[in-house]
Amino acid sequence: MRDIDDNEPGWQDVLKLLYAKARRARVIGLTGSPGVGKSTITDALVERFRAKGLTVGVVAVDPTSPFSGGAILGDRIRMQRHATDEGVFIRSLATRGHFGGLTASARGVVTVMEAMGLDVVLVETVGVGQDEVEIVRMADTTVVVTIPGMGDDIQAIKAGILEAGDIFVVNKADRDGAGRTVNELKGMLSLSGDHNRRAGWEPPIVSTCAIDGKGLDELVDTLDEHYKVLTADGGQMLTERRKEGFRRELLELVQAGMMQRLLARLEQGEGLAPVIERVLEGVEDPYTASENILATILGD
Amino acid sequence: MRDIDDNEPGWQDVLKLLYAKARRARVIGLTGSPGVGKSTITDALVERFRAKGLTVGVVAVDPTSPFSGGAILGDRIRMQRHATDEGVFIRSLATRGHFGGLTASARGVVTVMEAMGLDVVLVETVGVGQDEVEIVRMADTTVVVTIPGMGDDIQAIKAGILEAGDIFVVNKADRDGAGRTVNELKGMLSLSGDHNRRAGWEPPIVSTCAIDGKGLDELVDTLDEHYKVLTADGGQMLTERRKEGFRRELLELVQAGMMQRLLARLEQGEGLAPVIERVLEGVEDPYTASENILATILGD
Repeated sequence: MRDIDDNEPGWQDVLKLLYAKARRARVIGLTGSPGVGKSTITDALVERFRAKGLTVGVVAVDPTSPFSGGAILGDRIRMQRHATDEGVFIRSLATRGHFGGLTASARGVVTVMEAMGLDVVLVETVGVGQDEVEIVRMADTTVVVTIPGMGDDIQAIKAGILEAGDIFVVNKADRDGAGRTVNELKGMLSLSGDHNRRAGWEPPIVSTCAIDGKGLDELVDTLDEHYKVLTADGGQMLTERRKEGFRRELLELVQAGMMQRLLARLEQGEGLAPVIERVLEGVEDPYTASENILATILGD
Repeated sequence: MRDIDDNEPGWQDVLKLLYAKARRARVIGLTGSPGVGKSTITDALVERFRAKGLTVGVVAVDPTSPFSGGAILGDRIRMQRHATDEGVFIRSLATRGHFGGLTASARGVVTVMEAMGLDVVLVETVGVGQDEVEIVRMADTTVVVTIPGMGDDIQAIKAGILEAGDIFVVNKADRDGAGRTVNELKGMLSLSGDHNRRAGWEPPIVSTCAIDGKGLDELVDTLDEHYKVLTADGGQMLTERRKEGFRRELLELVQAGMMQRLLARLEQGEGLAPVIERVLEGVEDPYTASENILATILGD
């Protein structure tokens, strides 16, 4: 599985074959700022789903230097105690380049795990950027993790993923200000979250202290409850979610393909260097320059 | 200036005209996780640059819900004391949609501020995602702000922007563990940062306690020092940076234009709905589907 995220053409062919064979797993996304304890929670969820006899995959999306392309595995090491459990598969995924790709890569790994027949796939993302929002939106259930006392910016973080969250976790709930954080979250959710409310699901807030194992059983119960809602009435809600996920995946794949062709065609032509030179000298502005490039490539 | 980030065609024309007239400002990017005190530092920098007689623009990039499209202004309120100073312009910018755009929008606002003749433009971004990395890379100098005790994920955050940083700030340096954070940063920088080292600049680490005003004069001195290095020898280093920035801006503009045309052409055709239906039913996989869409649009 080493090269699934390399987006090589060969792998795409493999994914096509796997896709046809894969039954869909239950996909759970976990996201939140760095340091909120997502890995500890993921670890606990793996343990609890395994105890229920379910096989579990973990896709951990780690940020990567855009310069070096190398992945930092962070605290993946913690998960090593599952390493000998054949019912658990763990895959770390690095951020790939600028032009999309990460969501498609993550989706590709999920497809492989689905083809392996895993029951539950946990997708854990570090960060609060647009990429992360995209990734969690491919999950059937999205868990947003926060902690007390993240400072003034907490509102700003929440804004980005507030409406993407189906379940909110306030971890490290033994800390000062946990009650205030829960109340702030409640307040923000009451102003937002239409996307869930329309579907008849009021996103609950679960307080945990994951390092001591507190609140995790409740979190699993809440996850099961959400899955029950998703699959009720013939799974209409689940189908709608997955349609939206496929739409985003398709657009990302098409976009990535277009960029690939764009860059290839630029290489064939004069390339970008002389254009950049003209922009730098102020002879041309970037808007006109980009329109010219587009017209050349698309021939319109 | 209300609609600069709306990417309306009309504004693009305005930006073209402004671009021709704009002299380049000194652009400083500030980035870091939520809660590290970026706004307090930005505020202090505005004050200090103003004291030097320089006019200052601030572009604050706030995360936005991808669902509602509304911007959370967060703690912009703090900056209100500059509201009556005619030498200070502040503009909050929301995250726009999925397909790029934010970097181009931020660049557009910077262009407007440059055309206004502002001397220094501070671009402040919340978060550590790919978007943020792209935005800080359009700056002449990038300041990465962190605080002690961000937890295990600190290494993961750093990885994403470590090599983009020209100056590192450990804020809230009166907190426990500040020395350790500085040492960790030093260690990580010694393993990385080639991009700076090649240019003869060893990224310094400045300890601050912004809320008490400590370390901020040193930060301004360090910023000035970096600018001196950038502009030395006829500004070769500055030119190289800006070329790289233009290259990224051009690619983003071209990409946005391609996506616009893609979506328009999809609307003319059968649209995505039947394709999504086929993917959902397992009749078609997303990879084949996206290749078909591309072939139809590009005619190859």
